Amino acid sequence: MAAETRTRISDTAGELFRRQGMTGTGLKQIAEAAHAPFGSIYHFFPGGKTQLVDEVIRATGAAYGDHVMTIFDACPDLPTAVEVAFAGAAQALVESDYADACPIATVALEVASTNETLRTATADVFADWIEMGTQRIPAPGLPEHVRRRFVIGFINCLEGAFVLSRSLRSTEPLEAAGRMVLLAARSELAEYGAITGESP
Amino acid sequence: MAAETRTRISDTAGELFRRQGMTGTGLKQIAEAAHAPFGSIYHFFPGGKTQLVDEVIRATGAAYGDHVMTIFDACPDLPTAVEVAFAGAAQALVESDYADACPIATVALEVASTNETLRTATADVFADWIEMGTQRIPAPGLPEHVRRRFVIGFINCLEGAFVLSRSLRSTEPLEAAGRMVLLAARSELAEYGAITGESP
Repeated sequence: MAAETRTRISDTAGELFRRQGMTGTGLKQIAEAAHAPFGSIYHFFPGGKTQLVDEVIRATGAAYGDHVMTIFDACPDLPTAVEVAFAGAAQALVESDYADACPIATVALEVASTNETLRTATADVFADWIEMGTQRIPAPGLPEHVRRRFVIGFINCLEGAFVLSRSLRSTEPLEAAGRMVLLAARSELAEYGAITGESP
Repeated sequence: MAAETRTRISDTAGELFRRQGMTGTGLKQIAEAAHAPFGSIYHFFPGGKTQLVDEVIRATGAAYGDHVMTIFDACPDLPTAVEVAFAGAAQALVESDYADACPIATVALEVASTNETLRTATADVFADWIEMGTQRIPAPGLPEHVRRRFVIGFINCLEGAFVLSRSLRSTEPLEAAGRMVLLAARSELAEYGAITGESP
């Protein structure tokens, strides 16, 4: 039961942070939405809001990274992976009424200049995504520094497209982002003579 | 004097929103930082915080859009414009200790699912940027729908790179974004036989 309540608090907080950021999300709102007594938050998270936010950033960030990595693992080549990832992101966004985007971006911007502990948590998540993506994008023919640069560009495009798509309530930014990353993928593959997976 | 105080409140609010978002920025903090009496905020902005945030989003968004358009206007071709824009963004970010990025992105994410009035303000800004950029990128040989798609991708990359660069306190994401947009620019120009400005 205790573990369940703790998980419910953490999951509920993650959902609220994703939708409205952490600054505008009070512990009282989290407790109510999680159907948990207010005092249980300090019971499970003695460090209060900072501990809760830190844990939620790391947990939701890791889960989202794993989700994207499964796409990289399942696709035969980089262009396919790009198309699948951006189409999936657009679908999830529409199905969640333009709320279900990056779980940590809002918090990352809120804390970047104001809370060094939490900025570090977001930086650790982004660094992990970059590291994992560099190893796992389906483009073995690209040199490591090119894979790293490409993965960072991929994440940039996805994050920025989430900002614009949520604001405009339109998938057009995600479609434009997918096209841009696809063109970049084809260019890098051609430049390094690493075109793969496109022949039968 | 009155106009000066109003401008000082608005400018100070914009700076605070850019750094820490609007939810975490109280009217009291704005008044103190602007060296203005607390009551003057309601004097100049009878609609309170929503009116102030709405005005600041539109004013800072328009100024930032104009800044990027001057780069587009000054560059002889699209690849040059991309390189100048991303190098300038990286320089401004470092010089401001990783604070001076997009003036409206933090607020855009905070309000996207929570405040329809302010979401609309951010959407109007992004729509203006897209419209202006489509007309003014130095790539007359590209069809209008390609210019529009490219400009959206450009903004996506810049916005996402700001998220990662501020979090990681590194210009590497902006450099990777610049590279990705450059590759996309060259691909679109080549595909549409619109390479320009690269001969003497």
